[in-house]
Amino acid sequence: MGPERVDAARNRTLLLEAARRLITEHGAARVSTDDIAAAAGVGKGTLFRRFGSRAELMLVLLDEDEQASQQAFLFGPPPLGPGTPPLPRLLAFGAHRIRFGHRHHELLTAAADGAAGRDNPPDSVVRAHIRILLAEAGSTGDLQAQTDALAALLDATYIEARRCAGHDVDAQIAGWQSVAEKLCGR
Amino acid sequence: MGPERVDAARNRTLLLEAARRLITEHGAARVSTDDIAAAAGVGKGTLFRRFGSRAELMLVLLDEDEQASQQAFLFGPPPLGPGTPPLPRLLAFGAHRIRFGHRHHELLTAAADGAAGRDNPPDSVVRAHIRILLAEAGSTGDLQAQTDALAALLDATYIEARRCAGHDVDAQIAGWQSVAEKLCGR
Repeated sequence: MGPERVDAARNRTLLLEAARRLITEHGAARVSTDDIAAAAGVGKGTLFRRFGSRAELMLVLLDEDEQASQQAFLFGPPPLGPGTPPLPRLLAFGAHRIRFGHRHHELLTAAADGAAGRDNPPDSVVRAHIRILLAEAGSTGDLQAQTDALAALLDATYIEARRCAGHDVDAQIAGWQSVAEKLCGR
Repeated sequence: MGPERVDAARNRTLLLEAARRLITEHGAARVSTDDIAAAAGVGKGTLFRRFGSRAELMLVLLDEDEQASQQAFLFGPPPLGPGTPPLPRLLAFGAHRIRFGHRHHELLTAAADGAAGRDNPPDSVVRAHIRILLAEAGSTGDLQAQTDALAALLDATYIEARRCAGHDVDAQIAGWQSVAEKLCGR
């Protein structure tokens, strides 16, 4: 890498770290591109050169978290990762994704604003994971319909709508798990 | 009503009847505003004065069908209307709405094009109906989560996506009904 590309990579990392710090402190909605550039010690032009827009920067943060989440539920320790029986693992997965939705609702909203119509790769991973666990748990009938029903309840917009309507994270998790248990015949 | 308003109402009816006839014959995607105005025997300006746009006209047709559907599942004859035990009535409702989605997919698409972000009143009626029938059928646990899961599988965009993926109407109905039966503990 030439010195220019090293600088670009360094600035990118500085900006992402600054954004994470500020969002943790103040919430995504209260963090501007001015704040992020200042905290990273770079010019605002650099931020837009690296990320294009505020929404794109939020999307990168979200994708990093999404990668970490996928790592955890595909390969991490039990009860989320392998080594747990399929139904408890499915229940742990629902809880994990609902908590993820709650924790990231501002980031998800900020990213969605700037990414209308883009494909949603996490969604297909989520569906594949649910479907495999339903099959392993011995669920009968139309696994695709069951998968789509469970995935709909993990949709970020849906989770956020229920959150706004006053359903706390534990109530949402309990609701999701009761649907999953019924579908698996428990 | 003055003669001018009588004319307006008559033209509206003529245009809607012509649109229905043409859509039945050729499919919504192949019917233009020119075709509709010509078949109704009115000028194209009259069509736009009465409906604003092609999408709005499609929306009116869809709303009329939606009213007929609601009338059928709320007040119509069994197995869709009252007088049927709750679980069979719920299963009939799912089949009815999936058929509705299949039959109207072009109209739904055409209307959705012109109505981004509008509230979806049918959706709340659909949810209320599902929830009441789940409760009457004695389903236990979080009825809201169960309702939302079943309603997600009746979403027009979802039905259309599965239709495009090659799932026929009967397979979709069977899938929905198996989820509903499991949620009701059957």
